[in-house]
Amino acid sequence: MKTLEQLGEDGLIQLFQLAGLSSPENLSFSDDVAVVSGFVVSTDSLLEDVHFRRATTSAKDLGYKALAVSLSDLAAKGAAPVGCLLSWSLPKNLEVTWVEDFIAGFSSLAKSAECTVLGGDTTASHDGIYLSVTVIGSAANPKLRSTAQVNDVIAVTGTLGDSAAGLELLDTEKAAEPYLKMVEKHRRPTPRLAEGQWLASLKSVTAMMDLSDGLLTDLPRLMKASLKSAIVETDRVPISSDLLSFATSAKSAVEKFSVVGGEDYELLLTVKEDSFDKVKKEFMAEFNLPLTAVGKVTVGGPVNWNTSVDLKSLKPYSHF
Amino acid sequence: MKTLEQLGEDGLIQLFQLAGLSSPENLSFSDDVAVVSGFVVSTDSLLEDVHFRRATTSAKDLGYKALAVSLSDLAAKGAAPVGCLLSWSLPKNLEVTWVEDFIAGFSSLAKSAECTVLGGDTTASHDGIYLSVTVIGSAANPKLRSTAQVNDVIAVTGTLGDSAAGLELLDTEKAAEPYLKMVEKHRRPTPRLAEGQWLASLKSVTAMMDLSDGLLTDLPRLMKASLKSAIVETDRVPISSDLLSFATSAKSAVEKFSVVGGEDYELLLTVKEDSFDKVKKEFMAEFNLPLTAVGKVTVGGPVNWNTSVDLKSLKPYSHF
Repeated sequence: MKTLEQLGEDGLIQLFQLAGLSSPENLSFSDDVAVVSGFVVSTDSLLEDVHFRRATTSAKDLGYKALAVSLSDLAAKGAAPVGCLLSWSLPKNLEVTWVEDFIAGFSSLAKSAECTVLGGDTTASHDGIYLSVTVIGSAANPKLRSTAQVNDVIAVTGTLGDSAAGLELLDTEKAAEPYLKMVEKHRRPTPRLAEGQWLASLKSVTAMMDLSDGLLTDLPRLMKASLKSAIVETDRVPISSDLLSFATSAKSAVEKFSVVGGEDYELLLTVKEDSFDKVKKEFMAEFNLPLTAVGKVTVGGPVNWNTSVDLKSLKPYSHF
Repeated sequence: MKTLEQLGEDGLIQLFQLAGLSSPENLSFSDDVAVVSGFVVSTDSLLEDVHFRRATTSAKDLGYKALAVSLSDLAAKGAAPVGCLLSWSLPKNLEVTWVEDFIAGFSSLAKSAECTVLGGDTTASHDGIYLSVTVIGSAANPKLRSTAQVNDVIAVTGTLGDSAAGLELLDTEKAAEPYLKMVEKHRRPTPRLAEGQWLASLKSVTAMMDLSDGLLTDLPRLMKASLKSAIVETDRVPISSDLLSFATSAKSAVEKFSVVGGEDYELLLTVKEDSFDKVKKEFMAEFNLPLTAVGKVTVGGPVNWNTSVDLKSLKPYSHF
């Protein structure tokens, strides 16, 4: 019998398409979110010991991050948060203080993002914590993944790889100065909500998504949805000075973190070539955050990674 | 340290309220669904070995039921389904045929209910299946739980207790003729979508919810949300002839199934006293389904169960 591991994630999505369950009219499973009459809906799950461990993640950070990763999906569409639902299963013997701390973390972000908690569902689990967060946002003209055009500039917000480095610092119990900023980026990523809304308001921005699984995995997804390809210069992928110092060389930063690392929750977008310089300048003025060109959209085919690093040895992220 | 089991479900919901996370303007955690600008959103989770067992539930039935229980939340609000999102975590070694069967069951109901699959999220679990279904519906004037009025008639659609009897038949491996209809009601409950929309269109229907945890548990929830109480005649709770035959007496049917049993997914509603007879007659003409008065709304206080059965020995359902 064939198992899910053998089928893979794309094969699984195809099963839905074969069942006639997702139509080309809606965004279906390739876009992470659904768009209904000006509303954007997205749902994400987090499992204990798969996505987080209780020993290394505080309940407060987890509460924050559970909401942050879903809000990042809204940011990618240029949507403003309206509300969220929390569906969770918790072991009966869980300490109430853990739940209080989780809610404190969740609520701190819900309040600052103006995202009302609209409801949810609580059940008991035999063991382990399972979280599922659904967010609803409003967007007059949500940006999609499927609308990148040939010759568009491929750009990313902020810097990449800090979160993956932060995770390594936590895993190796080296989470200390001078690298706490990267640890914080892993623990409490900032969903780029205002940035996403600003970018989505521009006609020159042609497609957008958020970076949850790393550029090496996510960029081909954007290109595939747009039926396009890309050439990427990995040396141009923006890295922070902290990451450069931690990785000891730019080459090592690319090899281990900035191109392959997940959970940055920065935005990946395509911009009309002749507008890019203006957008980049205005974006920096508005948000004090870099918008960096890392490549160019080309006609279909596999993505061309122009790099001094052996990317073939690096595996794109897969859930299965 | 206090555990969740000691805190209980209501205590957990209070933690959210203390954190200022749910406001009186929205329906919050007491209504199972969120209402945003004419849209109704609800989310439900199903865990393996908590809500279902793979040994006794086929993948097809599970796919059907995972969607059915969420659609029932929409039915309770009088909402028409718009779309759904499926977020699930599956073990890597799960057979692909299981997934295909699940999708077949899910899709059969999605199609008949005209509920588009809008997206979702798939992750790998270490072991065990976790499902979370989010449904979106549209409702011009959704019915709430909080609006029952003193002297309203309390009514239920269909008959109650069949699903609980069906579960007992499955558990005791007696799922055979002449009781297969009750087994089917447990395996594949029909969300009362058309009925809910019809009832919600009536001004004389003052409040509504669906029966997922049993009348003994759910009726007090409706009354609490409305700040009212009720007197209920358990002898009037409608039971099917199959259940009467299986339980061997009406008293035993009440004691074991119709009042305490969960997962009927029938509608519980309150209706203006002077309109009830007309509504009941028209409902039967429209849906060929009984609408039965089981009690009356009274001023606050504990629900008064007028019964020949010792209900004190029966425990309301609790997840914790």
